[in-house]
Amino acid sequence: METLSVALGSRAYPIHIGAGILEAAELYRPHLSGGAAAIVTNAVVAPLYLEKMRRALKGARLTEVVIGDGEQAKSWQGVERVVDALLAARLGRDGLVVALGGGVIGDLAGFAAAIYQRGVAFVQVPTTLLAQVDSSVGGKTAINHALGKNMIGAFHQPVAVISDVATLDTLPDRELRSGLAEVIKHGFALDAAFVDWLESNVEKILRRDHGALGYAIRRSCELKARIVAADEREAGERALLNFGHTFGHAIEAGTGYGSWLHGEAVAAGMVMAAELSSLMGQLKKNEVSRVRELVKRAGLPVSGPALAPERLLELMALDKKAAKGKTRFVLLESLGRAALRADVDEKAVRAAIVAAAR
Amino acid sequence: METLSVALGSRAYPIHIGAGILEAAELYRPHLSGGAAAIVTNAVVAPLYLEKMRRALKGARLTEVVIGDGEQAKSWQGVERVVDALLAARLGRDGLVVALGGGVIGDLAGFAAAIYQRGVAFVQVPTTLLAQVDSSVGGKTAINHALGKNMIGAFHQPVAVISDVATLDTLPDRELRSGLAEVIKHGFALDAAFVDWLESNVEKILRRDHGALGYAIRRSCELKARIVAADEREAGERALLNFGHTFGHAIEAGTGYGSWLHGEAVAAGMVMAAELSSLMGQLKKNEVSRVRELVKRAGLPVSGPALAPERLLELMALDKKAAKGKTRFVLLESLGRAALRADVDEKAVRAAIVAAAR
Repeated sequence: METLSVALGSRAYPIHIGAGILEAAELYRPHLSGGAAAIVTNAVVAPLYLEKMRRALKGARLTEVVIGDGEQAKSWQGVERVVDALLAARLGRDGLVVALGGGVIGDLAGFAAAIYQRGVAFVQVPTTLLAQVDSSVGGKTAINHALGKNMIGAFHQPVAVISDVATLDTLPDRELRSGLAEVIKHGFALDAAFVDWLESNVEKILRRDHGALGYAIRRSCELKARIVAADEREAGERALLNFGHTFGHAIEAGTGYGSWLHGEAVAAGMVMAAELSSLMGQLKKNEVSRVRELVKRAGLPVSGPALAPERLLELMALDKKAAKGKTRFVLLESLGRAALRADVDEKAVRAAIVAAAR
Repeated sequence: METLSVALGSRAYPIHIGAGILEAAELYRPHLSGGAAAIVTNAVVAPLYLEKMRRALKGARLTEVVIGDGEQAKSWQGVERVVDALLAARLGRDGLVVALGGGVIGDLAGFAAAIYQRGVAFVQVPTTLLAQVDSSVGGKTAINHALGKNMIGAFHQPVAVISDVATLDTLPDRELRSGLAEVIKHGFALDAAFVDWLESNVEKILRRDHGALGYAIRRSCELKARIVAADEREAGERALLNFGHTFGHAIEAGTGYGSWLHGEAVAAGMVMAAELSSLMGQLKKNEVSRVRELVKRAGLPVSGPALAPERLLELMALDKKAAKGKTRFVLLESLGRAALRADVDEKAVRAAIVAAAR
């Protein structure tokens, strides 16, 4: 097992990474001083890991909240359901919420923990690659609203993250690849050496080699944690983590959420953003090719859905990250070095979408 | 106008106190850089002050959310209503929420601001004495749940508080006195000199003398702000602000919320807590008399409702501030000096309830 620390002053917390550590009772013990815990999980994860989690929390007064699978759980009703269960169990301010599952469970249980009695401790036990490399670092929790995703939420840091790579053995292929898109993103945006490593190890990851997965998760968390520590509230640098996401969100919105997985949309979005970086005179042609090639080897889409570029442009203009009507783009200056640009015109964006599809 | 600062590092904010300052546009301007604001108020306050508030915010793109009066607005439905309105108005992360009203509006609008897009800025414009001296300092926001008051919420500091003492001219007598209970509480718990001042000025306050009100609000905020700055998350010292509240909450719960105002319940609770302090050998008889006398002169109840002491004891055991099954009491060591005690037995508590009713 490896442990790294997210440096956030009094809210600093450890991320443990290893195979089989979901069952390591000693990782939970420091957070169980109140004697009570609530496990929040879903109907897919529960049959696989709930029994193991019960054993790890043995001795604590336990409540279990099993919700339906899928993004629709991230709703007011979902939060009410979790909060109702915590209150019914009389979980105190010193109680612990354990989020066992993917990003949806982390977001929902984390948000419930953030607002229950004005905030109780929670431990994240992410069981998807996406959650392990992305949503478990940064303290963002949220639910969706009919008028927008993640529109209601809180910054609430976990007291610990326990990333068990063995849980990825049961993850469907498509979801593994979707998570891999965010791993690759950390390389492209922040670390050229990590891009090199990924080019040598992407097949190992797809074969679910625990060692390769462990390293990919650790390096992703390190890179993200460094940025989050410097910019907890997303005032500046943290925006770099959105490389590929402006296009990606438009793809998700344009296809109806769910038909493209988040990582798939981000993958195509990264190729578009790389093409755009090249059109803006920043990225070399051979670097764009490396972006495209690695995305392809990861089994991810390199171009967008069958939508007119105009439709994607329209959707990007609505994106909540648009600042004062002008969409800011995260572009690459080179592989491993992203930067924000606000002076990108629509013509170049359209050309990049077309170029990605070539 | 006087201004004091609540020292909370990067979340420090000013409290402005004065007559007529609700309309002072320059107090809002620093927080309107995003160009958009949402006023949240209720059906009682809107006819009195909404037009003035509109003038103060002139130039900003405005949304108005007028909710029903009363505690029942502090619900999931209430928050959804506010959040829906913010989203419908496309309020951005740089938008401002203005809470115009008493404690319910502050709690509700503050909580909505805390969770809208993971937190937007809000200004409190409290229009009741209770909100001016109590809920506008400390960053507590919350809604109620069928299983308990304030069970769902967040710590979210305002960017400014604008306490206009002229708004108290329209406050019903009973609510003025209810707010005065919290003013007096700050004296009893924290500042003997303030108790002396109150003994000389309580009638002036009841006559709504703006000068006396201004001083009472300022001193209350100073005392509370000092404690909050040292203990933002209510880990220790902040509990002293709950003097009279363990009994008070039981009275509110036992009579059905609403029939006793919060300050009325706290007033009787303070007399009970003073009697208990005396029974525990801490407070002198003549000090207990001063507590009782000041509460009486403020037009507030000195004893509880027609409920068996056993019923109040039962309700106190359910109080969420009970730590590990043992209720901790805030007792007075002398006037102006409160301290926590956990070793109080039921017999003494029952005796104090009976003594208060004598």
